[in-house]
Amino acid sequence: MTKRIRQDRPTRQAQIFETAARIFCEKGFDKASMGDISAATGLTKAGLYHHIRSKEELLYEIMSYGMDLFERNVLNKVMAIEDPLERIRATLRGHVLLVTRDRPKEITVILHESNALRGRYRDRINARKKRYVKFLEKTFRELARSGSARRVDPSVATFAMLGMINWIYQWYRPDGRLDENALADTLADLFLGGLLKPAAASR
Amino acid sequence: MTKRIRQDRPTRQAQIFETAARIFCEKGFDKASMGDISAATGLTKAGLYHHIRSKEELLYEIMSYGMDLFERNVLNKVMAIEDPLERIRATLRGHVLLVTRDRPKEITVILHESNALRGRYRDRINARKKRYVKFLEKTFRELARSGSARRVDPSVATFAMLGMINWIYQWYRPDGRLDENALADTLADLFLGGLLKPAAASR
Repeated sequence: MTKRIRQDRPTRQAQIFETAARIFCEKGFDKASMGDISAATGLTKAGLYHHIRSKEELLYEIMSYGMDLFERNVLNKVMAIEDPLERIRATLRGHVLLVTRDRPKEITVILHESNALRGRYRDRINARKKRYVKFLEKTFRELARSGSARRVDPSVATFAMLGMINWIYQWYRPDGRLDENALADTLADLFLGGLLKPAAASR
Repeated sequence: MTKRIRQDRPTRQAQIFETAARIFCEKGFDKASMGDISAATGLTKAGLYHHIRSKEELLYEIMSYGMDLFERNVLNKVMAIEDPLERIRATLRGHVLLVTRDRPKEITVILHESNALRGRYRDRINARKKRYVKFLEKTFRELARSGSARRVDPSVATFAMLGMINWIYQWYRPDGRLDENALADTLADLFLGGLLKPAAASR
């Protein structure tokens, strides 16, 4: 139920999540301690453990919230688009803009700490990631059936697209010369149309 | 001089690097301790410190060796290729095969611990990474001048390609249905020719 509370008003628990996400981004999950988080929130350690059971639970809650943001702002908006080409372009643009314009700390934590979760926490986050992978694979299959796409293995297309997008946070500087909309369009054109001009590509 | 020794015969120092790379891959750099490494190599801690000054130096030496492997097996082999299109295809194939077929632990450490190095160690590794980035950007510019490529920002093309390749170790299973040569070819075709058939791409 933490998710619902969080979206409605900034409760103490939401403040803890927010602070912990920032500290995980700065120090990394392994190096960050519950002591760092209690100090940054102004709570005693006992006070912190009243709201949250463990550092792992905190990581899980942050990643869950990151997946909520992704699903609400990207996936749920594009799933119903009928035309697979329009659907893939809107997904690519939406996903790129989420990581470049909105830059939620929670998404950075998902990307950077993907191996830190264990057990059922890990399974639950992975199931949500897998849902997105299946959606992309299905869209690439539809696109191939429609006759507009080449015969490319849908899993390779999926992970090539995810690699392009998930790498952005490693190099993109929002205050650099490249505007986020231009980046989203360029990546969409590159992925859909390729680097070469049609004549050179078909050689 | 450690590099030269390492290539010639497995010295004690080379064994330490090999073991440390494995432990950093398994536990992550932050969690791995010099105690873990001394236990795995059968050296006392004092013996270990006779060969290496710190865990940071060890990480730097491992990443340097990873960059040696990359430069020797990929970059140095393609730099002299005259035709920019052939050059980019050979680079893409070579880089994909390095991470899928050879899978050196040192490359995984470079990808996974990119934020763990500090100071001059970090500067030196980053300078070598930057050399590769400049090489790719230059090749994309040449390709555009030759008339075969579309007008795509060379930095976006560079990081899109690196994202595709650097993400592979997160999802590719060498014992899966996808052979590494097929993967290398599919990614090269996708990156160069795009997902869409020429007619659909130019719409």
